[in-house]
Amino acid sequence: MTLPSRVRIVEVGPRDGLQNEPLPVSVETKAELVARLADAGLTTIETTAFVSPRWVPQMADAAKVMARVNASRRPGVRHTVLTPNLKGFEAARAAGVDEVAVFAAASESFSQRNINCSIDESLTRFEPVLAAAREASLPVRGYISCVAGCPYEGAVAPRAVADIAARLIAMGCFEVSLGDTIGSGNPATIRAMLDAVLARVPAAQLAGHYHDTWGMAIANILVSLEAGIAVFDASVGGLGGCPYAPGASGNVATEDVQWLMQGLGIDTGVDLDALVDTAAWISNELGRRPASRVAPARLAQRGKACENR
Amino acid sequence: MTLPSRVRIVEVGPRDGLQNEPLPVSVETKAELVARLADAGLTTIETTAFVSPRWVPQMADAAKVMARVNASRRPGVRHTVLTPNLKGFEAARAAGVDEVAVFAAASESFSQRNINCSIDESLTRFEPVLAAAREASLPVRGYISCVAGCPYEGAVAPRAVADIAARLIAMGCFEVSLGDTIGSGNPATIRAMLDAVLARVPAAQLAGHYHDTWGMAIANILVSLEAGIAVFDASVGGLGGCPYAPGASGNVATEDVQWLMQGLGIDTGVDLDALVDTAAWISNELGRRPASRVAPARLAQRGKACENR
Repeated sequence: MTLPSRVRIVEVGPRDGLQNEPLPVSVETKAELVARLADAGLTTIETTAFVSPRWVPQMADAAKVMARVNASRRPGVRHTVLTPNLKGFEAARAAGVDEVAVFAAASESFSQRNINCSIDESLTRFEPVLAAAREASLPVRGYISCVAGCPYEGAVAPRAVADIAARLIAMGCFEVSLGDTIGSGNPATIRAMLDAVLARVPAAQLAGHYHDTWGMAIANILVSLEAGIAVFDASVGGLGGCPYAPGASGNVATEDVQWLMQGLGIDTGVDLDALVDTAAWISNELGRRPASRVAPARLAQRGKACENR
Repeated sequence: MTLPSRVRIVEVGPRDGLQNEPLPVSVETKAELVARLADAGLTTIETTAFVSPRWVPQMADAAKVMARVNASRRPGVRHTVLTPNLKGFEAARAAGVDEVAVFAAASESFSQRNINCSIDESLTRFEPVLAAAREASLPVRGYISCVAGCPYEGAVAPRAVADIAARLIAMGCFEVSLGDTIGSGNPATIRAMLDAVLARVPAAQLAGHYHDTWGMAIANILVSLEAGIAVFDASVGGLGGCPYAPGASGNVATEDVQWLMQGLGIDTGVDLDALVDTAAWISNELGRRPASRVAPARLAQRGKACENR
């Protein structure tokens, strides 16, 4: 198997993770989480979201979090944030972010229920964001959710994913993150989805964003590596869980991804122990155990009990 | 990718799993677990072990468990048991088992610490067991532990595994189960190990026995399927944990393996929901949550809370 020699892990815990945690988290804790992740070697951190506080109260402190983060910047670290519209983009830009992201769905039902418009409408809404970002020289990442399945519609056609990915790239996104939002993808369906997308978009512009809800994330990353994908989103400690299956796992844990990469001899620049310590710390702050395999195994190996509940 | 169209899952929860659980389990509960697993479609169940009660007190009730199991046999289900020596074999035979198993290690240190003799000595000890089994027309399975790593020695050479696998087959074992006892294997090292073993033993005589301690088990099964392996050991609910990393995961959960097989269109004859219900029931009996991804996800999907602690 020919695999990429280097992989970039995009850490999404502070946004995608914390957004779905039931306990409120202070600005200080969020900023400390971001700093710890940067110190662990993560170079791209999805730091917060500039979205309506009415819809996403957990991210209402976005400007404050960015201000804290900017007060003690780590060199070489990019902070990316979600910006669904021009208002969010302008606030993000004013807050000094490095990159923004727009998000579409591959399923019409999910698009309607999640962002209250059709897929086409969502792409139209992103146009002014992309134009403004171009003017400000800020790179824009595109997210596609439900690339392997939708909680309302079931299976999603690979062609639908490929079509939206190609449109996001054509609109100016530098990269498209393919999100298996409910973790229903398996190595066969992820491979089929990637085959369709790779016919339209080169591997260098794609990222895998997989959820471990059904335990398939690491295997899905493996087949994605084999397909040439070299960017993967992950959430430290598996922060966030699965909003569609309460009590189940959500985003694949960053430490599990890092363990796979180390095992395959793939360089990420991330320090496993710093990452595991961060997973243990933030999980403890949230009163739970890390939702990863690697954190408890590594802590036990180091003679530390997992200090969480 | 060309994968086997049919896979046999060997359920090891009642033995390998329960042996490592801290709480004592009654004969009734053990027999009910075996019956529920058989009803879920598992056709090979590692039911108990005929070993010294001084070393393994959890299995001291082996004859009683087999008597209960035999009192309500499910047709087409094979009950296999561990028999380290002739005394254990004779007791197992008298108890009416269908198959026995012997176990060696691929690491000298592990062999010494686990069964108190060298690898060569362990193979010599198995000779009378294999002779007696041949006379009694009972098939013998061979286990090799530490095929990817040893808790005392670290990495284990693929050639050492291949050598012992070939010797076990030459001695008369019908199948050799390759055990990643501490779960340290990853898709690269498991593939290298399989390459070495497959040069000596055909895929049809091999089984993968992987632990999910570091979250790699499903990916390791995927590369094993690609190498032609079509038998996998698994433990319902991930029973057993990891004795070498307390609090961490051990045997890969049967329901996670079943989910992978379903996703890949591979027939196992196992019913996922019956399996998940069994995982939830036995985990509840043991006062813990299933150590799998699929059980909580499936229970949430079915509108059932995971009723465990």
